[in-house]
Amino acid sequence: MNREQLIEQIKIKKSFLCIGLDVDLEKIPQHLLNFNDPIFEFNKQIIDATHHLAVAYKPNIAFFEAYGIKGWQALKKTIDYINKKYPEIFTIADAKRGDIGNTSTRYAKAFFEDLNFDSVTVAPYMGSDSVEPFLAFADKFTILLTLTSNKGGLDFQVLKDKNGTTLYEKVLQESQTWKNSERLMYVVGATRPEYFQKIRKIVPNNFLLVPGVGAQGGSLQEVCKFGLNDEIGLLINSSRGIIYASSGNNFAQKATEKALNLQQEMEEILSSQ
Amino acid sequence: MNREQLIEQIKIKKSFLCIGLDVDLEKIPQHLLNFNDPIFEFNKQIIDATHHLAVAYKPNIAFFEAYGIKGWQALKKTIDYINKKYPEIFTIADAKRGDIGNTSTRYAKAFFEDLNFDSVTVAPYMGSDSVEPFLAFADKFTILLTLTSNKGGLDFQVLKDKNGTTLYEKVLQESQTWKNSERLMYVVGATRPEYFQKIRKIVPNNFLLVPGVGAQGGSLQEVCKFGLNDEIGLLINSSRGIIYASSGNNFAQKATEKALNLQQEMEEILSSQ
Repeated sequence: MNREQLIEQIKIKKSFLCIGLDVDLEKIPQHLLNFNDPIFEFNKQIIDATHHLAVAYKPNIAFFEAYGIKGWQALKKTIDYINKKYPEIFTIADAKRGDIGNTSTRYAKAFFEDLNFDSVTVAPYMGSDSVEPFLAFADKFTILLTLTSNKGGLDFQVLKDKNGTTLYEKVLQESQTWKNSERLMYVVGATRPEYFQKIRKIVPNNFLLVPGVGAQGGSLQEVCKFGLNDEIGLLINSSRGIIYASSGNNFAQKATEKALNLQQEMEEILSSQ
Repeated sequence: MNREQLIEQIKIKKSFLCIGLDVDLEKIPQHLLNFNDPIFEFNKQIIDATHHLAVAYKPNIAFFEAYGIKGWQALKKTIDYINKKYPEIFTIADAKRGDIGNTSTRYAKAFFEDLNFDSVTVAPYMGSDSVEPFLAFADKFTILLTLTSNKGGLDFQVLKDKNGTTLYEKVLQESQTWKNSERLMYVVGATRPEYFQKIRKIVPNNFLLVPGVGAQGGSLQEVCKFGLNDEIGLLINSSRGIIYASSGNNFAQKATEKALNLQQEMEEILSSQ
């Protein structure tokens, strides 16, 4: 999927909602455990119930890896299901990978080719030659960890150099000089709304993937205030707040309601732009 | 495996060699492609041919992921084979993972429990609460990316704050304050020998995992000069230089020879301590 197609979907659906698929067998409705592949069944029902309200799904790869080979099978079935039934959906492998060049190419192939995701999250610590192999893939996006929503995100990401430039700003600045940087998006936590204005000055055009709305306490309104750009430029992720809205038989219906609340809030924000 | 057992193995074998299993179907001897599981067969023959010369094996997870579910099956067979046949070997999942707390626990379970590795490599960018979930596992080690051997390693890792402290030094300092920090090891590239003295001042006791000897140009002698501590404290990794020493039918024998060269060099260094 390319950038124009993503923006078109946002405009059609009046939504820039991404739903995180962090599937935990201890949290899903227990009747699903009778299915042959409970992880896939849960995802399928969530996706069917919310696809008209979201423009993106983001399986967190850790939750699949934790179940070993069965988890990988469930991941493959999930991405294949989305790509076949809802090809208009933007897909994000939340994998937070990154390694030396040769090896990053392997990861890129795993997510972009074998699994056919539209994008993958990548950690910047190892620098340019660990990220550029991902950027080499056309019509695929690399989403760089920048300023994360967790408490520990402040341990290193806001360290300042002698000029007062923080590490996350360096990551933004440097990465803009890398080959195919137009294929970059950035992860910025919704728990850090005070930073969005600065970030938009450095990367006015790139999409930002924003986790942390809902369960982690981030505010959609505050993020949008400085995060939105002329082409929207935001994907707001909610995981637990939607997919675990209910642990009963009505979980899919409750997920629809929660997603609808966010979509409506987004529609209002977009119409007031 | 605990620290004492690892040190004991180093002393018995007079070796602190780690062999990286970066299996690429395009590089392995082509006759192996006739096997049911060529990746596992390659690993098995390499391991059988070198286990007496090495104290650790380090499968790079990217190379397995790139082959999808088949790759994960080969990884599981490989780690099971080592754990069963050579339980004295220290195993490293070179995965470079890291995510917010809840999710890091998932990765930790995947590698420490489901696959039963002794250790896993983790990226520090997301800070304390992304790493501590790994450190919660007893008799398991978390190997933090610190100063990597690739060119891009210098993009962010040596950025200095106003006091002249570099990011990689901050990573070392901060991480030493984290809970269970005695379960930390650190990745430091052999291509940066000038940094080992500084690093040993901050982390005198922790093991360092050192890639970059051989194909990437690092020198074993230079690394040992400042990297060795009273309990050795080094695991030197070689991947391509050993496993792809020959692409012919004699690949396992050639791997033995290359590993023996390194082991002998290590034995000499240890005896002169």
